[in-house]
Amino acid sequence: MEALDYHAEERRKAEFDVEEMKIVWAGSRQAYEISDRVARLVASDPVFRKDNRTMLSRKDLFKDTLRKAAHAWKRIIELRLSEEEASKLRFFVDQPVFTDLHWGMFIPAIKGQGNDEQQQKWLPMAYKMQIIGCYAQTELGHGSNVQGLETTATFDPETDEFVIHSPTLTSSKWWPGGLGKVSTHALVYARLITDGQDHGVHGFIVQLRSLDDHLPLPGITVGDIGMKFGSGAYNSMDNGVLRFDHVRIPRDQMLMGVSQVTREGKFMQSDVPRQLVYGTMVYVRQKIVADASCALSRAVCIATRYSVVRRQFGSHNGGPETQVIDYKTQQSRLFPLLASAYAFRFVGEWLKWLYTDVTQRLQASDFSTLPEVHACTAGLKSVTTSATADAIEECRKLCGGHGYLSSSGLPELFAVYVPACTYEGDNVVLLLQVARFLMKTVSQLGSGKKPVGTIAYMGRSEHLLQCRCEVERAEDWLKPNVILEAFEARAARMSVTCAKNLNNFPNQEEGFAQLATDLAEAAVAHVQLIIVSKFIEKLQQDIPGKGVKRQLEILFNVYALSLLHKHLGDFVASGCITPKQGALANEQLRLLYSQVRPNAIALVDAFNYTDHYLGSVLGRYDGNVYPKLYEEAWKDPLNETVIPDGYHEYIRPILKQHIRVARL
Amino acid sequence: MEALDYHAEERRKAEFDVEEMKIVWAGSRQAYEISDRVARLVASDPVFRKDNRTMLSRKDLFKDTLRKAAHAWKRIIELRLSEEEASKLRFFVDQPVFTDLHWGMFIPAIKGQGNDEQQQKWLPMAYKMQIIGCYAQTELGHGSNVQGLETTATFDPETDEFVIHSPTLTSSKWWPGGLGKVSTHALVYARLITDGQDHGVHGFIVQLRSLDDHLPLPGITVGDIGMKFGSGAYNSMDNGVLRFDHVRIPRDQMLMGVSQVTREGKFMQSDVPRQLVYGTMVYVRQKIVADASCALSRAVCIATRYSVVRRQFGSHNGGPETQVIDYKTQQSRLFPLLASAYAFRFVGEWLKWLYTDVTQRLQASDFSTLPEVHACTAGLKSVTTSATADAIEECRKLCGGHGYLSSSGLPELFAVYVPACTYEGDNVVLLLQVARFLMKTVSQLGSGKKPVGTIAYMGRSEHLLQCRCEVERAEDWLKPNVILEAFEARAARMSVTCAKNLNNFPNQEEGFAQLATDLAEAAVAHVQLIIVSKFIEKLQQDIPGKGVKRQLEILFNVYALSLLHKHLGDFVASGCITPKQGALANEQLRLLYSQVRPNAIALVDAFNYTDHYLGSVLGRYDGNVYPKLYEEAWKDPLNETVIPDGYHEYIRPILKQHIRVARL
Repeated sequence: MEALDYHAEERRKAEFDVEEMKIVWAGSRQAYEISDRVARLVASDPVFRKDNRTMLSRKDLFKDTLRKAAHAWKRIIELRLSEEEASKLRFFVDQPVFTDLHWGMFIPAIKGQGNDEQQQKWLPMAYKMQIIGCYAQTELGHGSNVQGLETTATFDPETDEFVIHSPTLTSSKWWPGGLGKVSTHALVYARLITDGQDHGVHGFIVQLRSLDDHLPLPGITVGDIGMKFGSGAYNSMDNGVLRFDHVRIPRDQMLMGVSQVTREGKFMQSDVPRQLVYGTMVYVRQKIVADASCALSRAVCIATRYSVVRRQFGSHNGGPETQVIDYKTQQSRLFPLLASAYAFRFVGEWLKWLYTDVTQRLQASDFSTLPEVHACTAGLKSVTTSATADAIEECRKLCGGHGYLSSSGLPELFAVYVPACTYEGDNVVLLLQVARFLMKTVSQLGSGKKPVGTIAYMGRSEHLLQCRCEVERAEDWLKPNVILEAFEARAARMSVTCAKNLNNFPNQEEGFAQLATDLAEAAVAHVQLIIVSKFIEKLQQDIPGKGVKRQLEILFNVYALSLLHKHLGDFVASGCITPKQGALANEQLRLLYSQVRPNAIALVDAFNYTDHYLGSVLGRYDGNVYPKLYEEAWKDPLNETVIPDGYHEYIRPILKQHIRVARL
Repeated sequence: MEALDYHAEERRKAEFDVEEMKIVWAGSRQAYEISDRVARLVASDPVFRKDNRTMLSRKDLFKDTLRKAAHAWKRIIELRLSEEEASKLRFFVDQPVFTDLHWGMFIPAIKGQGNDEQQQKWLPMAYKMQIIGCYAQTELGHGSNVQGLETTATFDPETDEFVIHSPTLTSSKWWPGGLGKVSTHALVYARLITDGQDHGVHGFIVQLRSLDDHLPLPGITVGDIGMKFGSGAYNSMDNGVLRFDHVRIPRDQMLMGVSQVTREGKFMQSDVPRQLVYGTMVYVRQKIVADASCALSRAVCIATRYSVVRRQFGSHNGGPETQVIDYKTQQSRLFPLLASAYAFRFVGEWLKWLYTDVTQRLQASDFSTLPEVHACTAGLKSVTTSATADAIEECRKLCGGHGYLSSSGLPELFAVYVPACTYEGDNVVLLLQVARFLMKTVSQLGSGKKPVGTIAYMGRSEHLLQCRCEVERAEDWLKPNVILEAFEARAARMSVTCAKNLNNFPNQEEGFAQLATDLAEAAVAHVQLIIVSKFIEKLQQDIPGKGVKRQLEILFNVYALSLLHKHLGDFVASGCITPKQGALANEQLRLLYSQVRPNAIALVDAFNYTDHYLGSVLGRYDGNVYPKLYEEAWKDPLNETVIPDGYHEYIRPILKQHIRVARL
């Protein structure tokens, strides 16, 4: 019997080799094969089922998560998975859990900030999970401003110990994942105080719970911070609160890779440059950008598949109604998001390269590219996560009413994704950091210092400030160099205008505060240019597979021109393009949508997501949406009984007019 | 002892009479007093507590909701509340429940579409709640396209009955609130078939459940459709699924106010014009716009109050850090939303007047204003709900990480609000309806037919297509007539451009499909103009109270100029303003934010929300945020035990390296 596939006809329309596109998406054949194998492994294992997740109470959800984490660890050991495979497996289990922080923050921080002895002591235990660690930085009163943390670590030279203490309520550690109920250890960030002097914030390894009975150690108050956005979603994670009442730890549990405190209590900066931490930051942000392309592609996959199934209006003579994906309003909202998923994927890939590059430079004590690298990673983190969060919600709306059902997968995807806009740097704060870099770059123009890397275009600002876009017909907008110059001109002009306006203020800091919104907009323009230019670089590579490159060219044009339309005010007001040219871009965009349309299903198939990972009735590979929606409904706990609990106490008295005497 | 009030100093800064502003917000002194009294009544009643709502399992939440509904009904009877007071009470209970549909849809539909006998028979039972009704229109396969509904109601002349039937899976009724577990009756919309002929969709009163034991009647399959977005939120509502297997109802249960079926099975249109249903639609949409201003003001109130409490960065010499509300980036995101709340409030007030006006006209058989009224209500529904949904999420982000906690109230507010973008007309579909009206208006220009009401400005299109904005200095942007003309010119030019481009297509329908996105943008421009112009009309009224009018003028300017900045591309590309004028608007906007700043707390106090209704630790009236956040955390079910359930099965085996042999 042939498998049911309502999308079969759509799949036949594809004008390119989907299998080759899968490899492009994955980054390499090897990455594709690992990903494909591990995804199937997870999907076929009943322990990893997640279709009832949003119906579970907090406690049941948490227990289910612990079970999955333990099972994942068991499978990783049994199958002797490589580090990459193990990480993929956790990824496809797709449920936030303490191991995310253990592997993603605790271990990397010890690696990055511990000295050799510390790494030798702690890492083997952590790798075997004989200890479980979390990363306790943010506090109830302090998120973005790390330097404002209040927890103290005071050196006591008499006992050779640090005394970790929470002096105020707002100094309570707050938010760390894995802290609330699971972690045995934490990397605690606290103000180092020796001999009455404050040396700023440093990291300390602190044991929180007994390894015998899991009870919190003396002086430690720890718990979960309560329910978060959504059902399911991040409620599987024990984000925690932690207070210290003069907790003592040995001196050698301060991470001493960068700074040290001697036996005598003397504070010493290591000769290892602090800039080394930037390497880790590039790594973390590269991962965040990659995650953005995953979350976005997932939402787009669901919305695209359902837009093909869903029909509404336009029936002629009793024939079927129009597939909603054929409406231009649907295309103009959906296809730019599809294109963004690919754009973010490629810029994420480039960031991976950048991480290698920056690591090598740092090892060679070449710190020259750091400011540029910092600005571009901070900006990419900000722009891709904000765009992704908005896009998931847009995809939900594109599914009509049914997108509001948990079984569509989209509400939970949104709820689980949005914190990315806040963690690892609030997105607006990051844009302002980018803007500072841009203003510095502008101020140094003409000083002989040549801007490099992603900011190199500023070196041509004289040209960019006066160049004219040469588009005369809609198809001129298909040329990558035309698009690139328009984006460069926009970014350069917005930065230069901000710099000029800053000069109108008596003091630079006041100007920066007053013009913060304009500066943030200039930063966005700079970052969008980076994404556009990395997409172009991707297109210049050798891309095999029938029609694959052509599809990517179309997606590139959709990405760039839809951005141009969205930010038309920037482009026209800065004189980069004329209103007429803006209208031509719009015209071209419509034609591009028609070219995406027949390939839409194949372009989301190329993400190669299993139905398990997608977790959406609307996004099913086979398109068999309605019978499954109907089937899912009956699984709700409310449907366990025909007469709802509460009928006799609260409904019947109303109907029988006994409400006046009812005791409620 | 004086009550704690961390906001006291902020409150003292206010430059206007807050009590008078409360009356402006409420619409009248009487409305204010009723609202204030009922809100306190609800807030002080322990049955209406909702602080644990997001932690409840679906079944517990549902039972809690039934209890509140019964208690609300009991209080309404005991206190002999007026219809307005009862409705306010349900509003402040703030939990979606079956009575919303009973009072808001079932009863109004019988009133509007039933004939006199039907009203006399059904309304008294419904008013007393001897029966509970819901509104069963949408189906699994049909939302927006009502004319595509599949459920059939076939007249059987032998028995003088209708046979209600669900011929396909996709014809299952799907979504109706109150249907799943509670309603005894439903207004079912089905295709009327007499003598083999399809007469389109009509309404039928169908009993679903026995009034004795609540069991579904023969031939009826009914249940809940399962979990929806968020925890708490709309999961308190039993949105339902319903299938009919040849269910028979007497002929007189077809709603016969507009059309009839005779004893012989003859279908007859009544001489009552169908346009009468538009009156109901204006009523419903006016309520949706009013609800938008409520939801938006609630989110803004939370974000504003917390932005004053929260401090981050900017500490000098160990002094306190800067209140985040003092950052221009925070102001430029928050204050336009504050201004929008007021703008939506006033346009909602005007819609109330419009409803009265249109009702009177309809009674006098004056249908002349209907197309304009329909376009403006459809457009306002679309624009205000979309803006509000986005704004709630923006307010959540403005609260930093803590906005992600359920105790902030914002996640649930978002989840419970977003369906407004889809129900009662998908927002994009509605914009296209507005655009059709605009195109028709443009095509009739010069035909002698003079546009009236909200579209009257099109009568001056010759002027608007060539006028030049006369702004030369930033303060010129404070003049309402300058702003009004810029918005009129933008709306007129966008419509006229669309109309011209439509002419390039061989057929109008194809053009409409291709240009749908541009048309929707033109519709938004038209609707934003309506909101701007109604705000101006409000300012022209006599507004008592020290400084109140001044504050409203500032908010008007913030609303209009922030919109102008957001849609700069529209204004500049259409030549309504120059880039220089756009920059001046931006400059003026910054000055306006500084004027809003000292009044921000007082402006949200004027909404007069109780802490109960706000339901947010971050938005507390007294600003005592951190101790309460800390306190709330410990109430989570996960904190009932120190050692989490699952430790022995799933955590200890990992730590003790027993995972290989563990049975998971």
